[in-house]
Amino acid sequence: MLSFNITCQDSSSSARLGKLKLSHAEIETPVFMPVGTQATVKTLTPDDLYDIGAGIILSNTYHLYLRPGADLIEKAGGLHSFMNWKRNILTDSGGFQVFSLSKLRKITDEGVEFRSHLDGSKHFLTPELVMEIEQKLGADIAMCFDECAPYPCTYEEAKRAVERTTLWARRCQEAHYRQDQALFGIIQGNIFPELRQKSAADLIRLDFPGYAIGGLSVGEPKEIMYDILQVTNSVLPVNKPRYLMGVGEPEDLLEGVKRGVDMFDCVLPTRLARHGTAYTSHGKITVRNAGFAEDFSPIDEECSCYVCKNYSRAYIRHLIKAEEILAHRLLSYHNVYFLVQLMENTRNSISEGRFDEFYRDFFKKYSF
Amino acid sequence: MLSFNITCQDSSSSARLGKLKLSHAEIETPVFMPVGTQATVKTLTPDDLYDIGAGIILSNTYHLYLRPGADLIEKAGGLHSFMNWKRNILTDSGGFQVFSLSKLRKITDEGVEFRSHLDGSKHFLTPELVMEIEQKLGADIAMCFDECAPYPCTYEEAKRAVERTTLWARRCQEAHYRQDQALFGIIQGNIFPELRQKSAADLIRLDFPGYAIGGLSVGEPKEIMYDILQVTNSVLPVNKPRYLMGVGEPEDLLEGVKRGVDMFDCVLPTRLARHGTAYTSHGKITVRNAGFAEDFSPIDEECSCYVCKNYSRAYIRHLIKAEEILAHRLLSYHNVYFLVQLMENTRNSISEGRFDEFYRDFFKKYSF
Repeated sequence: MLSFNITCQDSSSSARLGKLKLSHAEIETPVFMPVGTQATVKTLTPDDLYDIGAGIILSNTYHLYLRPGADLIEKAGGLHSFMNWKRNILTDSGGFQVFSLSKLRKITDEGVEFRSHLDGSKHFLTPELVMEIEQKLGADIAMCFDECAPYPCTYEEAKRAVERTTLWARRCQEAHYRQDQALFGIIQGNIFPELRQKSAADLIRLDFPGYAIGGLSVGEPKEIMYDILQVTNSVLPVNKPRYLMGVGEPEDLLEGVKRGVDMFDCVLPTRLARHGTAYTSHGKITVRNAGFAEDFSPIDEECSCYVCKNYSRAYIRHLIKAEEILAHRLLSYHNVYFLVQLMENTRNSISEGRFDEFYRDFFKKYSF
Repeated sequence: MLSFNITCQDSSSSARLGKLKLSHAEIETPVFMPVGTQATVKTLTPDDLYDIGAGIILSNTYHLYLRPGADLIEKAGGLHSFMNWKRNILTDSGGFQVFSLSKLRKITDEGVEFRSHLDGSKHFLTPELVMEIEQKLGADIAMCFDECAPYPCTYEEAKRAVERTTLWARRCQEAHYRQDQALFGIIQGNIFPELRQKSAADLIRLDFPGYAIGGLSVGEPKEIMYDILQVTNSVLPVNKPRYLMGVGEPEDLLEGVKRGVDMFDCVLPTRLARHGTAYTSHGKITVRNAGFAEDFSPIDEECSCYVCKNYSRAYIRHLIKAEEILAHRLLSYHNVYFLVQLMENTRNSISEGRFDEFYRDFFKKYSF
């Protein structure tokens, strides 16, 4: 169901090139996974994502459990069939969403009681129920149900969340039976290096086929995130894929790769698109700004995506001002392409032994 | 710049098949023109519209004049270049929008003073200014500035609007010089047959390359619309294209074709899409309805569009309920395809001498 091979290790950093074989296709890492929270990467079709070059997308157990429900998706033949996506999917466990979106949470070792952010209805999620849902959804990679402590929190709170995450990881593993789905463990521990190491050690003992680093990019300074990444990756097995959850910005992707991360996901490309913002090789630009009204150049001169080949900043700005949905669609396409392409260029630089140069060139040009 | 040839005349009705050669391509009539009010057919790209088979789209002078402005579009190289559309465009003159959307109108023979529906700013449109704008936009077909009387209105009001429309048509013709753009006259006269005939006679004297029938489908009973169509088309020259403005529903298209109409436009396919409604060969369905929650069949079993080949009613309903933009996009695609395809099937039936049968079969199946 899952095999992972490191095909090239960068000599100047922890960056590495890998081949990750999943049920629907083999993909190369490091990889950016566009986020399709509600069984759609906002505004885009699967065909757009194939064109963009996305080999794996992420979808959300919490959202799909609440709407339209896992049973309905199972009846449709699983999430791939429901949304007509023929490549790989990873489903997040809902842990993060229960803690960030829902209301009135009551957490015990048994599970989490919460109210839906949609209609206030009461739900109780346990590791076993999450496994049942994720197996009905049928993604290629499922994530364990975890407790994500908030930032900031005390050491004690973070420690309790780590212990519960380990307890739940074991129960997830016991409840998981789908052979065509890989189950990843999630490392917690907030910003405390020793808790991160403990969480990693706990999960390594359970021998998951891949490990995610959760609970980062939740408000802590970037330097802390990078340090935690370094610490955590240093104890993770070299031969297993490492997934940094919910991250991130282009600079975070490169910093993550440098520290040995293989997989990333983030809602930012489509969220920024909704706010009229686009990535360029020089940094982000707010296309809705008046300064672009008569700018007939593409969003990014160096980008070769469908949008940059066909539309101008002036046109997209007009669409934004006129509140036309096509603006969201074109900016989403470009932004997702930008990150997918950034990872492709990164992979090329690793395989050609020039990651260090690539990394430096990127930061010379890209301001954030 | 424009040539029009009738290639086949139906024997049982006024339906006819034509070849309309415009600056960007030759198209076959009868034809449905998707509406791109603000330089975009809502949610769709030009590539989607090529796939759908649209050969000509409509855009709106009133909207584009207010935002982003004709000068900006001229600087972009015209509307085709601005929106990256390589086929034909027809621009409406803004007459209808001034009367239906704007506020505080003061109409004199000189022109119309109104306030923008966007920001309340005051504007004064004359036939000459409208011609200047439409020539800057650079569509393949431009429309004369006309006065569209409301429904209901008195005979006297309708008569005054006809007289002013004739006066303005003459001034438009004088102010129009672009050789790569055809200027169509617009026939008014509300629901009064003799005013329609008078308006048609006035414009025929000015010898336009095409004639539009305006001010219909504004609230009058359908039977009246069909009667007015019959009366008007009976006096229009056979060898010029006839364009029924702002219409319409599938049944109206077929009734129009039967009465000799060659061109149609309507915002309904994309507007219905925004409300979760789709055309099918059996009539419209409200995809958001609970009854479709577990319906894994396509929107229309008989449709071969991209959406029907790839997505289920259940999935699209989920997208609607989850307020995902992809729902609008998929339904817009399907609905526009439905009308474009309906006209293609209609053309085939005319050329094969079975329009009467096609018409009867359609109404046997399609309920409205």
